[in-house]
Amino acid sequence: MSNSFGERYRFTIFGQSHAPAIGVTIEGLPVGFAPDMEKLAAFLARRAPGNGKYTTTRKEADAPEFIAGLVDGHTCGAPVTAIIRNTNARSEDYEDLRHVPRPGHADFAAAVKYGLDRDVAGGGQFSGRLTAPLCIAGGLALQLLEAEGVTISARIESIGGETDPAAMEALLADAKAAGDSVGGVIACVCEGVLPGLGEPMFGGMENRIAQAVFAIPAVKGVEFGAGFAAAGMRGSENNDPFYFDEYGIVRTRTNRHGGILGGITSGMPILFRAAFKPTPSIAIEQDSVNLTTHEDVKLTVRGRHDPCIVLRAVPCVEAAAAAAIYDALLESRC
Amino acid sequence: MSNSFGERYRFTIFGQSHAPAIGVTIEGLPVGFAPDMEKLAAFLARRAPGNGKYTTTRKEADAPEFIAGLVDGHTCGAPVTAIIRNTNARSEDYEDLRHVPRPGHADFAAAVKYGLDRDVAGGGQFSGRLTAPLCIAGGLALQLLEAEGVTISARIESIGGETDPAAMEALLADAKAAGDSVGGVIACVCEGVLPGLGEPMFGGMENRIAQAVFAIPAVKGVEFGAGFAAAGMRGSENNDPFYFDEYGIVRTRTNRHGGILGGITSGMPILFRAAFKPTPSIAIEQDSVNLTTHEDVKLTVRGRHDPCIVLRAVPCVEAAAAAAIYDALLESRC
Amino acid sequence: MSNSFGERYRFTIFGQSHAPAIGVTIEGLPVGFAPDMEKLAAFLARRAPGNGKYTTTRKEADAPEFIAGLVDGHTCGAPVTAIIRNTNARSEDYEDLRHVPRPGHADFAAAVKYGLDRDVAGGGQFSGRLTAPLCIAGGLALQLLEAEGVTISARIESIGGETDPAAMEALLADAKAAGDSVGGVIACVCEGVLPGLGEPMFGGMENRIAQAVFAIPAVKGVEFGAGFAAAGMRGSENNDPFYFDEYGIVRTRTNRHGGILGGITSGMPILFRAAFKPTPSIAIEQDSVNLTTHEDVKLTVRGRHDPCIVLRAVPCVEAAAAAAIYDALLESRC
Amino acid sequence: MSNSFGERYRFTIFGQSHAPAIGVTIEGLPVGFAPDMEKLAAFLARRAPGNGKYTTTRKEADAPEFIAGLVDGHTCGAPVTAIIRNTNARSEDYEDLRHVPRPGHADFAAAVKYGLDRDVAGGGQFSGRLTAPLCIAGGLALQLLEAEGVTISARIESIGGETDPAAMEALLADAKAAGDSVGGVIACVCEGVLPGLGEPMFGGMENRIAQAVFAIPAVKGVEFGAGFAAAGMRGSENNDPFYFDEYGIVRTRTNRHGGILGGITSGMPILFRAAFKPTPSIAIEQDSVNLTTHEDVKLTVRGRHDPCIVLRAVPCVEAAAAAAIYDALLESRC
Repeated sequence: MSNSFGERYRFTIFGQSHAPAIGVTIEGLPVGFAPDMEKLAAFLARRAPGNGKYTTTRKEADAPEFIAGLVDGHTCGAPVTAIIRNTNARSEDYEDLRHVPRPGHADFAAAVKYGLDRDVAGGGQFSGRLTAPLCIAGGLALQLLEAEGVTISARIESIGGETDPAAMEALLADAKAAGDSVGGVIACVCEGVLPGLGEPMFGGMENRIAQAVFAIPAVKGVEFGAGFAAAGMRGSENNDPFYFDEYGIVRTRTNRHGGILGGITSGMPILFRAAFKPTPSIAIEQDSVNLTTHEDVKLTVRGRHDPCIVLRAVPCVEAAAAAAIYDALLESRC
Repeated sequence: MSNSFGERYRFTIFGQSHAPAIGVTIEGLPVGFAPDMEKLAAFLARRAPGNGKYTTTRKEADAPEFIAGLVDGHTCGAPVTAIIRNTNARSEDYEDLRHVPRPGHADFAAAVKYGLDRDVAGGGQFSGRLTAPLCIAGGLALQLLEAEGVTISARIESIGGETDPAAMEALLADAKAAGDSVGGVIACVCEGVLPGLGEPMFGGMENRIAQAVFAIPAVKGVEFGAGFAAAGMRGSENNDPFYFDEYGIVRTRTNRHGGILGGITSGMPILFRAAFKPTPSIAIEQDSVNLTTHEDVKLTVRGRHDPCIVLRAVPCVEAAAAAAIYDALLESRC
Repeated sequence: MSNSFGERYRFTIFGQSHAPAIGVTIEGLPVGFAPDMEKLAAFLARRAPGNGKYTTTRKEADAPEFIAGLVDGHTCGAPVTAIIRNTNARSEDYEDLRHVPRPGHADFAAAVKYGLDRDVAGGGQFSGRLTAPLCIAGGLALQLLEAEGVTISARIESIGGETDPAAMEALLADAKAAGDSVGGVIACVCEGVLPGLGEPMFGGMENRIAQAVFAIPAVKGVEFGAGFAAAGMRGSENNDPFYFDEYGIVRTRTNRHGGILGGITSGMPILFRAAFKPTPSIAIEQDSVNLTTHEDVKLTVRGRHDPCIVLRAVPCVEAAAAAAIYDALLESRC
Repeated sequence: MSNSFGERYRFTIFGQSHAPAIGVTIEGLPVGFAPDMEKLAAFLARRAPGNGKYTTTRKEADAPEFIAGLVDGHTCGAPVTAIIRNTNARSEDYEDLRHVPRPGHADFAAAVKYGLDRDVAGGGQFSGRLTAPLCIAGGLALQLLEAEGVTISARIESIGGETDPAAMEALLADAKAAGDSVGGVIACVCEGVLPGLGEPMFGGMENRIAQAVFAIPAVKGVEFGAGFAAAGMRGSENNDPFYFDEYGIVRTRTNRHGGILGGITSGMPILFRAAFKPTPSIAIEQDSVNLTTHEDVKLTVRGRHDPCIVLRAVPCVEAAAAAAIYDALLESRC
C-alpha cells in the first residue's frame, strides 16, 4: 500500500490524471480548525499549470471541493475529504503511449505492474497532477504549523546546473525551443521547528521527509544539511559547535546537520535539498519499444508538457515537508 | 513509532548499546526457510568492530542467538527473534556526555526528547551498534533474495572526497593521527530485481529504500541513478532509451534512472548512493554546552570510536536495501 | 486513527450523515476487475432507507459515483474511490441534540470528544449512514470472493428475542406504534473459505471479523460458532470431531468452532452472530441532560428513525465479513 | 501480520511454547517510568501454571528478564523488550500430534497454514503460554493506568454454566476426574476511564478491546454492557438515562451501554464479557484424522493440560483490556 502517508497526520491520496476526480482524505486535523481557503487556493495556484511561460498549457481551476469533514468551514472531527474534478483532459493524446513507453517515465514500470489495460491517460496515477492533493494535505499542515510558529519555504536553487536566474531563464528558453527539458534542485528551509521531533531509526525526520519528498514525481535524490558535501569533510569541519544564545536556547554556530541529529530535530532550521530529473516527456525523437509488437521503435511524444517540472514543484516540496513535520509534531504529543 | 520497518517483511529492532542485549523480531519470513547461519555470521562480521586499523577497538562476538521462530534450524511460521548480548561495555566512558552533548551527535536531540535520564551509554538507542540487528534482518532478506536471483552489492565509492584507494588510506591514517574523522559515500547495486516492484507515491522503491537507509546513523543524503547529477542534465541526456535485448527483455541502454521509474522497478539494476557524514565523536576539543549548568564548555570526547564509520557501514547499506526490496517483493505477490 | 480497515484489502471511509458526500477509498483491488455495478446497486439497496414499513422514511438513491480508480469500468491499479452525495437531509431536525444527548446514542461521547461544535446533523460521522461506504467496500470484496467460490449470507435470527417471523412482525408493529424500538441478532454464514486464512494472535479471523463488525453502529456483541454457549459445554461436547469426507477433505462432523481454530480458518463454514441493541432514537420521552445549561432535562427525539436497525443491517454484516475475509485471503498469498 | 497490537502503545509478541524463549517488545511506554517489578511478578503469577488443583502441573518461574529499554530500572525511551526463558518443556509429548490434530485445537489450522514441519511442541505459537508476554505488556499498561486512576478487574462469572462457586468447584472436580474440560465466562470492569477515548468506526473501544481479547486462545465471544441481552430489549429499556451527579459529572443511571457509546468511552465503567470454550485437549478418546496417512483415527491426548483455562485467563483478560485502553488513552492525547 502506498497512497497513504503519516502516523498521526495521516492522509490517503486518490485519483488519476484523467479520472473524474483526484483528491485526498485526511485524518488527524484538530477539531474546530477553520482552513483558510484563500490561502490554500493561493498555495495550490503556485503549482497549477498554465501559469507561466515554461509550464504546460493545460488549464485547470484546481479548486478543491471539500465534500466531508467540515461543518460551516470548521473541522468537526470526521476525516476531511477534498476532491478536484478533472476537466480539460485530452485523453486521446495518450493512447499511443499505451504500447510505447516514454523513456525516463513511469510508463514502462506501470505497464509491467498493471498491464496494458492500465490508465495511461495523462500518466494515470503516476501523473504529476497527483501532487495537487499532496498540496492540499500539506497546505493544511502548513497553516497549522504556521500557527505554531513554523515556517517552511522552498526555492529553486538551480536549474540545469545554473544558479543564476538569468542563466536559468536562458537555459529554459533554449530547452523549450529545442523540445527538450531540464532538471533542477529545490532547497527547503523549515524554521521554528521544536527540538525533539522525530523518532529513532526508521521514524527519524530524515526518513519521514525523504519518504514524503520521493513521492513527488521526478525526485531522484534528497540530502539534509551539508548532505553529500559532508561525505567529503572531516568531523572537525562538519560538526556544528553548540552554544547558548542570548535567550538561553541551545543553538549551533553552523547548521551542517540541517536541523536533524540522530533523526531528531535539534531546534535549528531543517535544511534539505531535492534533486529533480528533467521532465521525461520531450518532443525530441527517442528510442523506445512497442510492448505489443515487441519491436524497437522511435517515439516522439506529443501533448502538453512542462519543459521543467521544477518550476511547479516548489510548493510540492513545502507540502511534503509540512506533512512530515506536522505528523511528527502530533506524534511527539502522545 | 519508529523501530519497525516494512509491510510484509516487517521487523522491529530493540536494544541500546549498553543494554543487556540488542535484537530484532522479524515477521514475514517464509515457513521452512533454513537460514544459513555461517553466511549470516560472515555478513555480520563485515560490520563488526575491532576488525581493522580504522575501526573502534571494542571487540564483540556479535553472534546472534535465535530465541524464537526456528525449530531445528527452520522457520516454523512464528516470528523470528534473534538477540545479541552486549558485553565488553565500558559505560563509565559516557557519563560525562549526559550533560555535555557531542557536536554532530544525537546526544543533544536525545536529551531534549528523552531527558537527562536517557541512556547515554554508548549512544543508547542511537548507537551504530543497532545496525547489527538491521544486518540480521537484512542478511536474512539477502539470503532469500539470492535464492530468487537477486544480488546486492555495496562498496565504498569515496572517503573524504577521495576515490583512489591509496588516497583514502592516506586520508584515514591522517585523520586518525589527528584524532579527527572523515565521511564518505557508499554506492550500492542491486541486480536481478524483477520489474514491477514498489507501489505508487509513498510506497515507491525510492521512498522505501530511503526510509531504510536513513535509519543508518550518519547518513545525510540518498540518491538514485544519476541522482543530483540528473538535476543538471537535459531530458534528452537523462532519459534512458529502451530496447529489446537478445532474450526479448526490455532493457535501457543506460541506467540513469537507477532501475526505478515512477517509484516502480524497471528490471534494470537498482543503483543508489548514500552520503555518510564523518563520525561526530572526535578526540579534538570542540565547543559544546553543559545542559545542566547552562554554561558553554569545551569538550574532548574520550572512548573508542571509529574514525570513519563508512568502513563498517557497507553491509548495513546492503541490509537496508535487501529489507526494502524483499518487502516490496512480498507485497507484489498479494 | 480509525476510519481505515485492512492490511491488504485496505479502505478508508469518510463523510458524515449531512456532509456533501460520504464515500470510501479502496486499495488492494486486483487490476482489471470490472465491478458488477448492478449487483453492487442491488446489494446497497438492501441497506437503503425508505424501503420498508419499519425503516426510516428518508429516501436516498445511494447510487455510488466512482470518481477514481476505474477506466472503462475496470480497475486500473490506482485506488478506487466512490462517493455518494447526500441529499434529502433535514439538518434542522438535529440542532436541539447539540446540547442534549440522546440516551444510548453516540451523542454524548461525541460531544466529549469533539466538543459542542461537532457535526450533530444526522449523527454526523456516527450515523448508520456511514455503513453505505462499508457496503461498497464489502460489496466489491463479496464479488471477488464469489469468484473464488466463497458465499457470505447473513440473516435475522431474532428480533426483540423473537425468532418466529410472525412474532417479529408483531413486535415491530407494536414497538413502532409505541414510538419505541427493538434490537435483534444477525447470524452470518461464510461458506467456501479456504483453510489457513488468518494470522496468529491479534490477526486471527475472529479478531478481524470482530473489528469490522463492531464498526456497525449498535453492535454490542460478537460470537463465533457456539460462542457464549460453548462456555457452558464440556470439551467432549464442544470439540468437533475430524473426518475425511468423500473427496479426501478434512472436515468436522459438527461446527461448534465456527470455522475458526486458533484464529485460523479450518475450511468449515465461518459462523458468527452479532447482537444489535435497539435503535437509541425513540419517540418516547427520556431523561437526559443539557450540556450547556448543565440541567437535567426531558428529551423527546424528533426526526425519522428506524424502529429496528437490524432490518437494514443484514448486508452490513455481510460486508464486514467479506472485507475481513478478503483481506486475510490476500494476506495469505504474500 | 499479527503479532503486534496497538497504535501508540504498540507491542509485538514472539516465541513458541517450546522455543528457547517467549517475549515481547513494547513501544510507547513513557520515558522515566519505573515498572514495579514485584507487582508485575504478582500479576504474572495469577496466570502461571502449577498453582492450583485444576491447572496444568507444568511449573515455570515465568520471571521476565528485561533485556532492553530500561536503565537502572527506568524506561529510557528505547523500546522495552522482556523475555521469559522456556524450561521444563517435554516436547516429546507432542510429536504424535504432528500428524493427528486435536479436535477443537489450532493444530489442524496450523498444519494447513504452516505445514507438517510447523512447531507442534506445546502448541507452538498457538500455545496459551503466549499470553505471558501479553500479560507483561498489559501488566505494564495496568500500572500506568492505575497511576491515572483507572482500575481494571476481571472475575470468573461462570464455569460450565454454573455461577455458584461451590457448583463450579464440583463441576471442575467432575470434569477433571472424567479427563474432560469445561468452559466459562469472564466478566471485566474497567473503572475510572475518561470519557472520549476511542475513535469512530474501526478504531472504537469495542473494536480494540475485541481485537485484543480474541487474541487469548479459546475466546469465542465478546460482548459489551448488556451485549446479547440488549438484542432482546426495547430502546426504552436499554437506553441508559443521563443525569448530572453531585459533582456535575454526566453519568447514566444504568450502564447497559457498558461505558461505550458510538465506540467512544462515556466515562461510565467499561463492562465486557468474554466467553471461553472448554480446553480442547482432553484425555477422553476422540475422533480425528491422520494428516499423513489420510486415515480416520482415534486420538487420546497425553500430556499436561488445564481442565479449565478460565481459571488462569482472568489476568489475561485484564491485560488485553489494559493494553487497548492505554493505547486509546495515548492516542487521545495526539
